[in-house]
Amino acid sequence: MSFKISYNFIIRKALTEEKQVSTKTSAADLVTETDHFVENLIISVLKEKFPSHRFIAEESTAAGSKCVLTDSPTWIIDPVDGTCNFVHRFPTVAVSIGFAVNKELEFGVIYHCTEERLYTGRRGQGAFCNDKRLQVSKETDISKALILTEIGPKRDPATLKLFLGNIERLLKAQAHGVRVIGSSTLALCHLASGAADAYYQFGLHCWDLAAATVIIREAGGTVIDTSGGPLDLMSCRVIAAGTREMAMFIAQEIQTIHYRRDDEN
Amino acid sequence: MSFKISYNFIIRKALTEEKQVSTKTSAADLVTETDHFVENLIISVLKEKFPSHRFIAEESTAAGSKCVLTDSPTWIIDPVDGTCNFVHRFPTVAVSIGFAVNKELEFGVIYHCTEERLYTGRRGQGAFCNDKRLQVSKETDISKALILTEIGPKRDPATLKLFLGNIERLLKAQAHGVRVIGSSTLALCHLASGAADAYYQFGLHCWDLAAATVIIREAGGTVIDTSGGPLDLMSCRVIAAGTREMAMFIAQEIQTIHYRRDDEN
Repeated sequence: MSFKISYNFIIRKALTEEKQVSTKTSAADLVTETDHFVENLIISVLKEKFPSHRFIAEESTAAGSKCVLTDSPTWIIDPVDGTCNFVHRFPTVAVSIGFAVNKELEFGVIYHCTEERLYTGRRGQGAFCNDKRLQVSKETDISKALILTEIGPKRDPATLKLFLGNIERLLKAQAHGVRVIGSSTLALCHLASGAADAYYQFGLHCWDLAAATVIIREAGGTVIDTSGGPLDLMSCRVIAAGTREMAMFIAQEIQTIHYRRDDEN
Repeated sequence: MSFKISYNFIIRKALTEEKQVSTKTSAADLVTETDHFVENLIISVLKEKFPSHRFIAEESTAAGSKCVLTDSPTWIIDPVDGTCNFVHRFPTVAVSIGFAVNKELEFGVIYHCTEERLYTGRRGQGAFCNDKRLQVSKETDISKALILTEIGPKRDPATLKLFLGNIERLLKAQAHGVRVIGSSTLALCHLASGAADAYYQFGLHCWDLAAATVIIREAGGTVIDTSGGPLDLMSCRVIAAGTREMAMFIAQEIQTIHYRRDDEN
């Protein structure tokens, strides 16, 4: 992807500036003009090259575009993942672009804007961080595991109870630790690189998942639904792990937090 | 500090290798041979230059050295902060060295090993990340705040309830988010750089706090006890914030988790 330099420039520059912040589904679900600007830039460049392709993108969806995955070639885009971090200048922010044909994810690209790490994965051809091949952890034992999760946009008392209850269950199962870094896609990249053993979340979106799913699978990992069944990209929930055993352990341990499907809106 | 290159080499190299991991106070309180190696290296270099100085360091204390701050010039050292991250190759790991005379913190140096960021602060002379002057956030409103914390080594059910209950209180107060990155010193560096609005923790140690306290204060921030009173470096608990208002809000909101003092052991 040749956008790397302009993304880097736009997002790193914006990171240091005062931002106009608006909210979306909740007071903690933030958006800035940079999210819109970068999304429009990516879509306009891709549309010129691939006029027949479809697009699913975070801010277009928030503005009312339908979020339905068809068999057509489709780009699935998160222009600024970790918007809350971005607003606070917390340097854990990424651009994520996935590509699907016939509802099958073909490749994914995730760019860590401040650390200049480009994660890529292409079906059948491996996953890389810059030039280094990625390989997930082979850990199967929760008591030796580092787990990643994110809070999600809903903050009502019942959701918070479930969210914190799930962390409690995993810490009681003696997980080494739980980390919350504020970017689903970068957490999933840590998983792909073997720096953590599992990731789970309720309330993320297809644009958080599309690119990362290819990268993790190509790094040898498992990406499934929180029920333990196959991943449903539109279901707003996921477990990813280095091993199937670890993913299934998490699936049995955590309680479901209900979010609307991406294609229900 | 001229150790930068050797730390960087030793820790970054070790990060990619298989590690011999042992536990200390709990199954989640880890130590590796690198922690010992780096600590010994730092102390031996400093002892040669400053034979009359005292040392308080994480692994020497774990091995039984007394952890008492006297009026003598004292180096307070965490050789690998974020050991659990280090064990998992999760790239958020730092070396922290603080220096106190007459029980007053004079300067601090924290080195982010994988991102090659050197945070420094000297009393009365400002705080810097590499060459950039650090400035804390001026936020006073919890509903616009990003909060950082860490789990701490105790994982019994009562401690976990309190730990998660504190996060719940801050999210119910509509904090934008809570982050847990696995390194107290680097979380405190984010606070110093204005990338977060507050940090609190129970169960950290004087070697996690010494360098960071100088850096945060020199960046304009507040570092206090969780009771709202003055910081006690040996009390194993802290609130740091960009503003005094934010620190006091956190102090009123969170419940105490009891840990033994560093100088009690």
